[in-house]
Amino acid sequence: MEILLVNGQDALIEANHRALAYGDGLFETCLVSHRTIHFLAAHLQRLMDGAKKLLLPFDDAQKLSLKQDVVHLTSHINEPHVLKIMLLRKAPGRGYDFNPKVQGLDVVIQLNPYQKPDWCQGAKVVESSIPVSENAYLAGIKHLNRLDSVLARQEARSEGAHDALMLTSKRRVIESSMANVFLKVQGQWFTPILDTAGVNGIIRQHLLSAFSSQILEQHIDQATLAQVESAFLTNSLMGIIPIIELNQRKLELCSNLTQFTHSLRLLRD
Amino acid sequence: MEILLVNGQDALIEANHRALAYGDGLFETCLVSHRTIHFLAAHLQRLMDGAKKLLLPFDDAQKLSLKQDVVHLTSHINEPHVLKIMLLRKAPGRGYDFNPKVQGLDVVIQLNPYQKPDWCQGAKVVESSIPVSENAYLAGIKHLNRLDSVLARQEARSEGAHDALMLTSKRRVIESSMANVFLKVQGQWFTPILDTAGVNGIIRQHLLSAFSSQILEQHIDQATLAQVESAFLTNSLMGIIPIIELNQRKLELCSNLTQFTHSLRLLRD
Repeated sequence: MEILLVNGQDALIEANHRALAYGDGLFETCLVSHRTIHFLAAHLQRLMDGAKKLLLPFDDAQKLSLKQDVVHLTSHINEPHVLKIMLLRKAPGRGYDFNPKVQGLDVVIQLNPYQKPDWCQGAKVVESSIPVSENAYLAGIKHLNRLDSVLARQEARSEGAHDALMLTSKRRVIESSMANVFLKVQGQWFTPILDTAGVNGIIRQHLLSAFSSQILEQHIDQATLAQVESAFLTNSLMGIIPIIELNQRKLELCSNLTQFTHSLRLLRD
Repeated sequence: MEILLVNGQDALIEANHRALAYGDGLFETCLVSHRTIHFLAAHLQRLMDGAKKLLLPFDDAQKLSLKQDVVHLTSHINEPHVLKIMLLRKAPGRGYDFNPKVQGLDVVIQLNPYQKPDWCQGAKVVESSIPVSENAYLAGIKHLNRLDSVLARQEARSEGAHDALMLTSKRRVIESSMANVFLKVQGQWFTPILDTAGVNGIIRQHLLSAFSSQILEQHIDQATLAQVESAFLTNSLMGIIPIIELNQRKLELCSNLTQFTHSLRLLRD
């Protein structure tokens, strides 16, 4: 089943839309299967958090209305699909400026069949030469400014890797081009603090909450990567993806991964 | 005269276009008047530089073709207009990845009447609380990831200022929300080095080239702002905009501005 809707109707937007001109909006990518949108409440909450940062007019009533729309749309979907939601700022005039009191929202909803790639069983990951884009104000939210991920993803594939880790200008690890990252060093699990860059992923949020005594948020320097024993990536579509090779070095598979993955299954069922 | 074209025809794009999803593209905003696109060669060159960085398929032949199109389109325009050009990556599939060998380009051309705002005569400028987005790989080019400028611009206006200076995480001045900045300190003119962030503006390029003995590129710390004697902003539409007030402190008008502005007029006529 394929669906592409703008405000429930046309699948087209004006070429002078400010969301295209500046990436002025937010998005979510949700896994749908067994007539369920997995982690829907968390996805909607991240949209709320993002809307607050971007001063987008998306309140509780609109959240509820959006929830009802997407639940209805996916209520007969059994096979895995990806549901993408975009909130685009609509405002009169040209140029960067907008008036928070005179603006609207275009909601784009897209539904497509989804199949996990084979490498979800075990990913080869390298460091990217493309730095992550840093902005402390925008860190954590899932906005439409994603050129760093686009370029890092392409680079990873062109080098024969499945994904690439993106680092800050201070050479701190943040995330991969499309996922959060968890690293085990000297028996302890860590995930990077996302204070200057990165997306606070839904699976990341879940693991940090469910395993708060086992996983620490911490700054992770490039040099630490040589000491990593086990590692995995997380995103909403793929769940937990073991990293089997990091910078051409083989990693161990850790028994914790079964436990972490099991916690996702429990939530989804 | 108002024109909005996508590849010479429709003014609409698909809502699942990757340029909307990720800001995966470039743009230029050019001043048109007296049947002339001002600094057209420099604008096209910046598109070429950007396309190289983003691995967009935009070569010399396409540049020439685009040039002919926009020159033709504006050949009867006398009154000031703004010509906006966007190059959008078109590639199959969903997700961040693209294959440089299997991609195309959508070209958006937009032409609208333009009137300089009154504050071009003298701008009140404050520091923004929104940091500039930093990415050393993307610094200098004019890509579509502009959320930092959107938010800084809105903040400036809401505070009663005309524009806001955006700083890095290291508290270095980079640019304003919509212009480059030039600052005079102890009799010497400076403009920030754009090695981690910012757009290398066309007027900035011209001034650095034409007045290489008078203007230095340098890192400019926040603390320096208190010592600034005179300052101005530059962008392609407004030219040179004197800053009359910086962080609520009145600045001198410097006689150099006449000389700098005169050099733009010579080029435009």
